[in-house]
Amino acid sequence: MFREEICRFIEKRDGLEEGAAVENNIFMTNGASSGIEMILNALIADSNCGVMIPIPQYPIYSATIDRFGGKKVGYAMDETKGWSASLEELERSLAEAQSNGINVNSFVLINPGNPTGQVLTPDAIQDVVKFCSKHNLVLLADEVYQENVYEAKKEFYSCKRAARDAGLDKDACKIEMVSFHSTSKGLFGECGRRGGYMEMVGFDPAIRDQMYKLASSHLCANVPGQVMTSIMVNGPKKGDISYEMHEEEKKTIFDGLCKRAKIVGDGFNKIPGLSCEPVQGSMYCFPKVDMPAKAIKAAEEQGLTPDTLYAVSLLENAGICVVPASGFGQEKGRFGFRTTFLPSEEEMVLVVDKVRKHHGEFCKKYE
Amino acid sequence: MFREEICRFIEKRDGLEEGAAVENNIFMTNGASSGIEMILNALIADSNCGVMIPIPQYPIYSATIDRFGGKKVGYAMDETKGWSASLEELERSLAEAQSNGINVNSFVLINPGNPTGQVLTPDAIQDVVKFCSKHNLVLLADEVYQENVYEAKKEFYSCKRAARDAGLDKDACKIEMVSFHSTSKGLFGECGRRGGYMEMVGFDPAIRDQMYKLASSHLCANVPGQVMTSIMVNGPKKGDISYEMHEEEKKTIFDGLCKRAKIVGDGFNKIPGLSCEPVQGSMYCFPKVDMPAKAIKAAEEQGLTPDTLYAVSLLENAGICVVPASGFGQEKGRFGFRTTFLPSEEEMVLVVDKVRKHHGEFCKKYE
Repeated sequence: MFREEICRFIEKRDGLEEGAAVENNIFMTNGASSGIEMILNALIADSNCGVMIPIPQYPIYSATIDRFGGKKVGYAMDETKGWSASLEELERSLAEAQSNGINVNSFVLINPGNPTGQVLTPDAIQDVVKFCSKHNLVLLADEVYQENVYEAKKEFYSCKRAARDAGLDKDACKIEMVSFHSTSKGLFGECGRRGGYMEMVGFDPAIRDQMYKLASSHLCANVPGQVMTSIMVNGPKKGDISYEMHEEEKKTIFDGLCKRAKIVGDGFNKIPGLSCEPVQGSMYCFPKVDMPAKAIKAAEEQGLTPDTLYAVSLLENAGICVVPASGFGQEKGRFGFRTTFLPSEEEMVLVVDKVRKHHGEFCKKYE
Repeated sequence: MFREEICRFIEKRDGLEEGAAVENNIFMTNGASSGIEMILNALIADSNCGVMIPIPQYPIYSATIDRFGGKKVGYAMDETKGWSASLEELERSLAEAQSNGINVNSFVLINPGNPTGQVLTPDAIQDVVKFCSKHNLVLLADEVYQENVYEAKKEFYSCKRAARDAGLDKDACKIEMVSFHSTSKGLFGECGRRGGYMEMVGFDPAIRDQMYKLASSHLCANVPGQVMTSIMVNGPKKGDISYEMHEEEKKTIFDGLCKRAKIVGDGFNKIPGLSCEPVQGSMYCFPKVDMPAKAIKAAEEQGLTPDTLYAVSLLENAGICVVPASGFGQEKGRFGFRTTFLPSEEEMVLVVDKVRKHHGEFCKKYE
């Protein structure tokens, strides 16, 4: 029943006809991460298997690829172009890996982006889908932030929809993709429930059966998480007694996130020495920090990345906890951090202010 | 808080002093299986790493060892001695694997047994613990059926207690063990909740920290499952309003399981051609079946194990679903199946009767 509800949700979301999503292609998972782990486990048959991942990326990918002994093949997201990736860069990265003898078999796309907060255009996503189809790469579509799109001009455009719009859904195996979703994000943010699902699209049924076998070794996804997933994809309907309250609560949370995305994005951009792309989606802002040369040297002496030195200083001197950008990967010579904007508006205003004050002091210290 | 409760539960269960269980050694898991998977993942560093597993065993071990590319090293449980394993057999199995160049680094003990239903004696468990200590094997103590001991003369005796009683808990690293527990068994049987924990005992803190890192890649065990685990280890106390009802319900479930364990054990033993050891614990009976020679031949022709032919026949002709014994592993030339005894007493009496009737017909068919 839950899987049927998920199918109807996907079809409605993507404007597809009924039947475009099939129950047997849906796997309930303990959050998105257990699905990602299962798929990477299946894809990494030996130490020569490569997975293309964005740089910057969410560390579950790098850590899990390392754990299963595969090869990370990074493609650069271009900060100067709103954290998008060009087809040229994808081809370059793939060709380089292949020339090093790596058997690249899959590709990770995170949209809306984590840690980078961008929402890719339909064209950009179609490019990725076509690229994966052309090179027989299994597309891992990390779409857990699909509800978290804040910019009015933008909307979430799924990889499944892109495949349809690019005409790749007509024949079997033109594109193989797995889309991950989770109850941990969106407007509920029920991370502790470990709810989620993945949809396998375009796979040979024999491969899907093997995934079913692999999934069965975990017995089942926790049932309360399955219920939470059902609520996420199939909430109260017009006429239900909880409908108005549910809609109002969703709107309040969504409006709050939109405001805070602007507070951090605009706020950081006004701090001399910090800059960031507009936060279009997800739950993160990923500013770039002009790092004083002496801070870089001091970090080196302490065996830290400059990002880490900066983040620790921010924590110790301003009480603000951020994640050093180095953990996500970034262009050489770039420095920064990732922050969420989940605290209240008032607090986020304070956070921006404290970051400004701290940055001044930090620069002075390492003048 | 949950982990503290688990520590107090372990100390009370094993008659150990307060502090004998340490919060940081407790990992909350999604059922026992996610803990088992995590530990096996860590233990199997390369294709030469071997894990000793009982034969018969629960298939999560064989499947997960295969998945991580390790070597299964079977040691035989002796059906003629109530499914216990002798020290001679353990030494034989280890020596044989080592002479084949396998780096055996760990040992799985399932007590109470799955699929075999035995409850090992304190002496037998101390033998295992000493054996693991002597050969530097990490002991994986699958103790998920610790509440499910039905024979009045028997009691659950944990590997941790065995280590203490054998004097192996005095110095660090005399024995390294991980004990798994779950909310899926016991008297609640809340499998869908995916609740459980594992306790790491005797490990170097640096190794425990690495496990913490590995566990963190799954973010957290689902919170409702954590709550269920807390309820399991720390139920209503005397004086609480729900205490009487809770005790009564537990007693009813336990008494029912005891009766049904006897119904299947005694019942199967009275069927000519079937025999089984008394069901002392867990939730299973694992009878041996005298397989007609013609059935063995027929199975071979159909590309099935004789156990599978038998189980399918039982399903198709009597409507009873059992698991072929071949899936768990057994001595060459032995045949049989595993059944639970979770349906009601009345139904289990019927099941035994139907199994008897079917066995007669099966033997007639393959006379």
